[in-house]
Amino acid sequence: MTVEKNMLTNKKERPRVIIIGGGFGGLYAAQNLGRQNVEVLLIDKRNFHLFQPLLYQVATGGLSPGDIASPLRAVVSKYKNIRVVKGEVQNIDLARKKVFLENEAYSYDQLIVAAGAQHHYFGNDQWAPKAPGLKTIEDALEMRRRIFQAFENAEKESDPQLRQAWLNFVIIGGGPTGVELAGALAELAYETLKNDFAAMDPSETRITLIEGAPRILGSYPEQLSVKAQKTLEKLGVNIKTDSLVIDIDDNQLRVQQGDASETIRAKTILWGAGVKMAGLADILARESDAVQDRTGRIHVSANLQLENYPEVFVIGDMAYLEDKNGEALPGVAPVAMQQGKYVAKLIRRQLKGKPVKPFRYLNKGSLAVIGRNAAVADFGFAHLAGWPAWLVWIFVHIAYLIEYENRLLVLIQWASNYLTRKKGARLITGDLTVHSSKEKDVSNVY
Amino acid sequence: MTVEKNMLTNKKERPRVIIIGGGFGGLYAAQNLGRQNVEVLLIDKRNFHLFQPLLYQVATGGLSPGDIASPLRAVVSKYKNIRVVKGEVQNIDLARKKVFLENEAYSYDQLIVAAGAQHHYFGNDQWAPKAPGLKTIEDALEMRRRIFQAFENAEKESDPQLRQAWLNFVIIGGGPTGVELAGALAELAYETLKNDFAAMDPSETRITLIEGAPRILGSYPEQLSVKAQKTLEKLGVNIKTDSLVIDIDDNQLRVQQGDASETIRAKTILWGAGVKMAGLADILARESDAVQDRTGRIHVSANLQLENYPEVFVIGDMAYLEDKNGEALPGVAPVAMQQGKYVAKLIRRQLKGKPVKPFRYLNKGSLAVIGRNAAVADFGFAHLAGWPAWLVWIFVHIAYLIEYENRLLVLIQWASNYLTRKKGARLITGDLTVHSSKEKDVSNVY
Repeated sequence: MTVEKNMLTNKKERPRVIIIGGGFGGLYAAQNLGRQNVEVLLIDKRNFHLFQPLLYQVATGGLSPGDIASPLRAVVSKYKNIRVVKGEVQNIDLARKKVFLENEAYSYDQLIVAAGAQHHYFGNDQWAPKAPGLKTIEDALEMRRRIFQAFENAEKESDPQLRQAWLNFVIIGGGPTGVELAGALAELAYETLKNDFAAMDPSETRITLIEGAPRILGSYPEQLSVKAQKTLEKLGVNIKTDSLVIDIDDNQLRVQQGDASETIRAKTILWGAGVKMAGLADILARESDAVQDRTGRIHVSANLQLENYPEVFVIGDMAYLEDKNGEALPGVAPVAMQQGKYVAKLIRRQLKGKPVKPFRYLNKGSLAVIGRNAAVADFGFAHLAGWPAWLVWIFVHIAYLIEYENRLLVLIQWASNYLTRKKGARLITGDLTVHSSKEKDVSNVY
Repeated sequence: MTVEKNMLTNKKERPRVIIIGGGFGGLYAAQNLGRQNVEVLLIDKRNFHLFQPLLYQVATGGLSPGDIASPLRAVVSKYKNIRVVKGEVQNIDLARKKVFLENEAYSYDQLIVAAGAQHHYFGNDQWAPKAPGLKTIEDALEMRRRIFQAFENAEKESDPQLRQAWLNFVIIGGGPTGVELAGALAELAYETLKNDFAAMDPSETRITLIEGAPRILGSYPEQLSVKAQKTLEKLGVNIKTDSLVIDIDDNQLRVQQGDASETIRAKTILWGAGVKMAGLADILARESDAVQDRTGRIHVSANLQLENYPEVFVIGDMAYLEDKNGEALPGVAPVAMQQGKYVAKLIRRQLKGKPVKPFRYLNKGSLAVIGRNAAVADFGFAHLAGWPAWLVWIFVHIAYLIEYENRLLVLIQWASNYLTRKKGARLITGDLTVHSSKEKDVSNVY
């Protein structure tokens, strides 16, 4: 039996706004509705906001999960009109304006859906355990475990072919996640770990980045893709563009380039490719007449509203909206932040009977970091690469971390990492039996 | 088939020292054999050294795992004569001087066994899932998950009795671990979280500390036990001494005090009690004529040697040695550190044909922290309590962290925690389905 709950005591009968998702979109919407004349309910299945753009640093041992996560209750506790509910939304009844959790239901006057995206294996879900993706803290810790355990296994393996298989890393997807992972991994293998092993040489590590399109960082200007590729190659990363992954096994993957195909042997395969919307997108589309794109994104109005339901907003990765050039806005943090802020402002102005202009994304630029001191940046009016882009990248990421404490923690670890070339958070934790050296060769005497 | 390996290239045929365990004892032994005329092999099943005395801060969301862990390879990479092997020792052949891992064997000239302790449920291993202990990073993250999920469940529960069960925490064991956990939990419930919930009041949290002996902190002078008890009670912790746990269930535990017994209802039960030696202690005892105490500790000679095997040293939590008053040395970090250093010195002096005096523990004092700004300290010549002890506690713990980076990270988080009363690392991660609110009451409308 599901029990309907009123949101707060709500004596003043203020409009009730429900926000689903505490990512960049949902959290910025909540903060911009703080201390306003509305009751806000922020629902998330996790108890923290996650700074996803730095997740790859957790996966490669540079930062700890706590550094890039902020407890949602702590972030909004200063706003007395915001309540946080930890739970997973099971259904939304658009007609009756209700949101259903496992055992409760909440009514809304306005609904903001910002539930984000998951990774997507293009119909090959069986690849998931073989090539883990990077969307959650657990994903990042699993990647970290596999990466560092691979080096440990290589150290113990004296058969040269098997050892090389442990030192081969393949990253699938040449978007920002894949590029940043490849850069961090190169830095790890060729710098951080270079003196740490006795029986093997980490410089024998081979990192391959596979991209289906003709160039990496496809959403960036071509000139920056070229710079990024050159920088990665200089770091030692082997890049294969126009290459489609057609099969993944525990120890190898098959890649097709045009009519040719090849097999790459690698014990560690990491997934930085496609995303798919959270299941809520399908529910919204089913209940409304909204159109979804290929990845499940919901087409929204110029005010980010759901078709036929002007009181429902869809923002962030889940929303499909084109810019003035007819191109879809990308699923990145700045879009989600600006949309969260926009919807909060729209609701505030509606309360006062004031009109609102359509949403316009102000592109402040795109950034991707490549290893220890290089990055590429696209600010529209200017393209940067190398050192200057790297400094901008650091500044921007520190500035957007939600809490002061996290800014300091990240800054210290980056400074220490930069000066000592060590990475302090390279712990192998969790289930120690998985991905260990099963394929034992017993003839190894050294 | 097991393969015998030589330790290093070892061209000079230097004596080979194997150290089992990278805790305080093993790591201090390794560091004090660095750049000496020996080949050292440091074996640990984990790839990091863990600063166990601060594990309770991870369990209560004050610090991240990475802050109190240091990768073993990074710590010893500056010593070219030390090699790290990640693996679990399966057996030791004292007669043939060999250590066996899963698939390899290593020969030694000298062996230092420093494999530490596990928690111990006094023959009630079925209690382990109901009352998790605190020895590993995984243990701490499991405790953290249970603690913060309990508050989330209380927030959602409208039946007053069930809500109170989620707000009841029981800690079993009044040693330093239990006392520090209880203090941190009180600070969390009554300070950190006090404004974070809407439907329930965290001040209704009840924390009970259960100790079988007549007083908590039994290894400290009685005067400090009394002060610790008073401080904890002032923080809101309910202390039951002379109380034995006789049964633990998912939702309650039975406690016996003399002839009376009572049932305490609590959803979250944490284990801070008995320890048992790692299985290697039994192997050593079986192979030698060494005597073990009740908890499995190995009686060692005045030089920390194993009976009949002078080339084998047992140090840290695993070793049983009495001080000049006939009391057993406690299983704490300072004992292990001094023993590690002593054995390294003994081996160095033996190489030069010099004699070595028996090991003597220099007790620099005992410390336990109690919540936000109180602690008790026993320096033999002086007892401290309250603020002064707390400041000493902070200084000592920062000073003994292995890496500079970790010192800074811990210092910042403590400062931030102290100033803002927030705890940044209170993330609920891992398996989200366990310990969730199963016992649902569906009549809750609020």
